[in-house]
Amino acid sequence: MVRAKRSGRRSGKPDTKAEILTAARALFANEGFESVSMRRIGAEAGVDPSLIHHYFGSKDDLFLAAIELPLDPAPEIAAVLKDGGLDGAGERLMRAFVTIWDGPHGDKLLAVVRSSLSKPSMSFVLKQLFEHRIIKTVNDVLGDQVDHVPARASFIASQIFGLVVARYILKLEPLASLGVDELAETVGPTIDRYLTMPIEHLVK
Amino acid sequence: MVRAKRSGRRSGKPDTKAEILTAARALFANEGFESVSMRRIGAEAGVDPSLIHHYFGSKDDLFLAAIELPLDPAPEIAAVLKDGGLDGAGERLMRAFVTIWDGPHGDKLLAVVRSSLSKPSMSFVLKQLFEHRIIKTVNDVLGDQVDHVPARASFIASQIFGLVVARYILKLEPLASLGVDELAETVGPTIDRYLTMPIEHLVK
Repeated sequence: MVRAKRSGRRSGKPDTKAEILTAARALFANEGFESVSMRRIGAEAGVDPSLIHHYFGSKDDLFLAAIELPLDPAPEIAAVLKDGGLDGAGERLMRAFVTIWDGPHGDKLLAVVRSSLSKPSMSFVLKQLFEHRIIKTVNDVLGDQVDHVPARASFIASQIFGLVVARYILKLEPLASLGVDELAETVGPTIDRYLTMPIEHLVK
Repeated sequence: MVRAKRSGRRSGKPDTKAEILTAARALFANEGFESVSMRRIGAEAGVDPSLIHHYFGSKDDLFLAAIELPLDPAPEIAAVLKDGGLDGAGERLMRAFVTIWDGPHGDKLLAVVRSSLSKPSMSFVLKQLFEHRIIKTVNDVLGDQVDHVPARASFIASQIFGLVVARYILKLEPLASLGVDELAETVGPTIDRYLTMPIEHLVK
């Protein structure tokens, strides 16, 4: 087991993991994922950075643990976009999205969304997830076919977050009871439009 | 001043209004706006229904007071839809929506949405508002031109609630900084599509 060197005082305590998560959460919230280093989080938690790696793995993994997300959406999004490219991407994204949310992780995802929407201090969870994981993934896969990915992604996010609200929080009918195919077919074209509409004039 | 007859004990208390609102909130939440009568609310609050009318006006007004909404969206929606009909309705709705949310009532509206999204017990606020005020209004104005209004409205709501989340809660850029015209032009066609797409096969 890797032990903290800088601050031996805390290294053996059973709440070390909790202290790392608390420090990470506060720093991600206040300064953003990109600008916070593992070293910084270690200093804040009073542990050696190697201990963070030992407990949580990469900074990506630490972020997902800090926001208590039960699964990382990035690999799923990457797979869906790679397999088929831009053509019909909206329908495939919707299908993947609804399948995950209707599945066993749905309740936990809903808890994350609810807490992020309820308090201003918690909105960093979804915002960082969006900016750090989603945009980056879409850029990696479609960056050579689609311009201004972050701008387009903000419109796509508006439709996707709205679906979470309408289907899983408010349970508006018939939207809440529709099957995967029906949702993919009706909402997919909205995503496709946001992926392809002229957008240069909106990006300063 | 109208006095409670059934339960004189409480009629003169300064917290009568608060008791009426508490009773109304609980009944609207558990049984829905349509199925709850003023008489029922009066019985629950221990006051005569005429006192409710005296304090709050109609059942619609009581509902708006119970959910603490600073303004009733129904007349605005009706005006926007009437003035121009179905053609370009999405753009006009978006324009009205963004103008209200960017205006002086925006913070209060945001507080209502946040509280409604944060706890399952509060989701009735937006759900009832949607089912009772919004669908009814759209049906009144466009009911002879558009079929299956409630189903279409659930899709439109998914885009509109998502805009609230993306623009006003998470503040995703560039969506959060766009002007009214830019948002109306980009999101309006999504609303139009939901108003006109084939939908019979989704409605059981």
